[in-house]
Amino acid sequence: MATKKAPKKNAFYAQSGGVTAVINASACGVIETARKHKDKIGKVYAGRNGIIGALTEDLIDTSKESAGSIAGLRHTPSGAFGSCRFKLKSLEQNLAEYERLIEVFKAHNIGYFFYNGGGDSADTCYKISQLSEKMGYPVQAIHVPKTVDNDLPITDNCPGFGSVAKYIAISTREASFDVASMCKTSTKVFILEVMGRHAGWIAAAGALASTEDTEIPIVVLFPEITFNKEKFLAKVDGLVKKHGYCTVVVSEGVKGDDGKFLADQGLKDAFGHAQLGGVAPVVASIIKQGLGLKYHWGVADYLQRAARHIASKTDVEMAYAMGKAAVEFALKGHNSVMPTVERTSNKPFKWKVGMAPLSKVANVEKMMPANFITKDGFGITAKCREYMEPLIKGEDYPPYKNGMPQYVRLKNIGVPKKLGKFDLK
Amino acid sequence: MATKKAPKKNAFYAQSGGVTAVINASACGVIETARKHKDKIGKVYAGRNGIIGALTEDLIDTSKESAGSIAGLRHTPSGAFGSCRFKLKSLEQNLAEYERLIEVFKAHNIGYFFYNGGGDSADTCYKISQLSEKMGYPVQAIHVPKTVDNDLPITDNCPGFGSVAKYIAISTREASFDVASMCKTSTKVFILEVMGRHAGWIAAAGALASTEDTEIPIVVLFPEITFNKEKFLAKVDGLVKKHGYCTVVVSEGVKGDDGKFLADQGLKDAFGHAQLGGVAPVVASIIKQGLGLKYHWGVADYLQRAARHIASKTDVEMAYAMGKAAVEFALKGHNSVMPTVERTSNKPFKWKVGMAPLSKVANVEKMMPANFITKDGFGITAKCREYMEPLIKGEDYPPYKNGMPQYVRLKNIGVPKKLGKFDLK
Repeated sequence: MATKKAPKKNAFYAQSGGVTAVINASACGVIETARKHKDKIGKVYAGRNGIIGALTEDLIDTSKESAGSIAGLRHTPSGAFGSCRFKLKSLEQNLAEYERLIEVFKAHNIGYFFYNGGGDSADTCYKISQLSEKMGYPVQAIHVPKTVDNDLPITDNCPGFGSVAKYIAISTREASFDVASMCKTSTKVFILEVMGRHAGWIAAAGALASTEDTEIPIVVLFPEITFNKEKFLAKVDGLVKKHGYCTVVVSEGVKGDDGKFLADQGLKDAFGHAQLGGVAPVVASIIKQGLGLKYHWGVADYLQRAARHIASKTDVEMAYAMGKAAVEFALKGHNSVMPTVERTSNKPFKWKVGMAPLSKVANVEKMMPANFITKDGFGITAKCREYMEPLIKGEDYPPYKNGMPQYVRLKNIGVPKKLGKFDLK
Repeated sequence: MATKKAPKKNAFYAQSGGVTAVINASACGVIETARKHKDKIGKVYAGRNGIIGALTEDLIDTSKESAGSIAGLRHTPSGAFGSCRFKLKSLEQNLAEYERLIEVFKAHNIGYFFYNGGGDSADTCYKISQLSEKMGYPVQAIHVPKTVDNDLPITDNCPGFGSVAKYIAISTREASFDVASMCKTSTKVFILEVMGRHAGWIAAAGALASTEDTEIPIVVLFPEITFNKEKFLAKVDGLVKKHGYCTVVVSEGVKGDDGKFLADQGLKDAFGHAQLGGVAPVVASIIKQGLGLKYHWGVADYLQRAARHIASKTDVEMAYAMGKAAVEFALKGHNSVMPTVERTSNKPFKWKVGMAPLSKVANVEKMMPANFITKDGFGITAKCREYMEPLIKGEDYPPYKNGMPQYVRLKNIGVPKKLGKFDLK
């Protein structure tokens, strides 16, 4: 007879919220690390379409995927198992959902819960760790940080952000070179709309396009700063007079002094239907009416957060490290925690993996510090640059075939169900 | 005394119209090749802001640039000397402009005229070659093909197109992966607006995102096909029902059956000002009203044609080769010609440099062949794919420093003027 060992448990992993260029690198870190510890962790089950997969017992058996496919996740953008926008209600409002999760975990011998997402999923993760103990089926719940919005507390940054920042910085530089070539007789202002409804982290990345050796006149419109039309037009006018052109990087979340999003300023089509903004065309309109300058505008939208082809190497490494650390924390018996990026030095940039209790992560939003935005409200300070530049450093190109990046698609084979149906509310 | 040699002439080079990710690679080809033939070609002068630089005698002395800076042009997007949107009028309408060009060439001992642009500049180039002979100061005029629109005749393709096609194909694939991850509970349709007011070449590149090993449901809206709302909605509806999501790649030039651009459908802001379209938000609106599906939309605009970070290696090589060949043609005594890309084999893809007389290039627009678009009008045929796939092949990454691509900026030192002022009309 074999000697008695600690009971081997399976793990559950799910992706939550808007996906990124590197969330799959975290998945890769979780699965590759778990596979190295088969004595302690059985299978890694993934939720099909995030937490919905757990609620509906729609689990994916990742052990059916080859080592090569799992390794390929490291260079594949998007959520390989499907993600979802589905926020669990509070325990009081919908205890049944939480109880169902525990039930599914119990049915499939799941002892580890790895939840890869932003603020909302950190909160869910925290609740599950508490509830599972109460219900007598303890699950170690570890949150794996991810969000292009960079708004999780304690961690130096959120994996996903570095790559979107790199994409926006490079795109802003490239488009600015373009406008500079054309400005004598044509376009004088290029406007790029970027994500970030609440915080200006991504918009700030536009300013990284301008460096000491490649100066570019850039105006950033942050959601943190109330839009002031006169000041904005004066700024653009001054830059165009001096340089012949300028580039405006505008956050989708910019608001006017009426507190409304600039993007929602009541556009209507010819039939009177409300038009679906876009703050970039609104800013273009303001420039045209105020200064009469020729403009072009672009909206990066999903392109920015899916741009794995130009992901930041630093970001990819951090994303992988977070997934790996989550499993290692679990193996060490930790519960209700989140691995973090801990910056230990700026010059040279150094970081290590840290750990934060979920009680301090859940429901806390990290905003841009006030001293990251210049006094005039249109740029970033040296302090902001010092913080952000290391995060976009390094390239980590995916493999190509016939000119196209080779992103993996998994087989995503389901695990046989053991429970009855559960209706989502 | 030295033996008598053919008189050494200077060369003039200018960039025209919308710039691309690789027009500077052509400039690099021109200048590096000219520098190898200093016995025959003196200096290469570049027009500051294109042909305007020649008209105003605002010439840039490229001999002041280091070999390293000129080599750096190969990986730098935009127009390093400035471009312009300035079409010379016909000889009858404004003979003075043409005479002025010849005068400037004469004053600066310019015997070679290299004009890097699309259809309009080919026409200008052609006229100059004819007129200069009549005026008794022969100038060898060679056109260097460039345009993201891919609409020049005879040449297999236009340098600049391959890189924009690669960018659009990759961006479409990446955004589609993103939507596929989210579609269970969120966005079901992603709409990407691309350039191409007259021809659907760039829109067609969106379809390259879907390959045999990575199939993606994509709907392309070509400017060649009149927009039919019912058919379009039925197509989108079918794909979303089958795959859960789809991606729409829409050309800015798509028109309704009233012959008007879909983008110009009379949007007005809250103050009654005409709104500055954007066909992507219009298509989004149609999908929302017709199918009630959640969408996201992006507009690539300048990002697509400036994206040197993901340029096609094939395109870069062709762009350089066109510049090099232009100088070699000139040295062989050719006049009024354009180097072309001549495809000699599809499998494997092979090409060589050809030559076309400008008389056959000027004022001819190459449209998408009808057999490149599928019968339903929403996709590309195997023939189109066979033509386009080789053009996006290969990567040619620029050098990076601290996470940012290192694009060169030249000194652009002016040549002392010898003539009086000339007022542009």
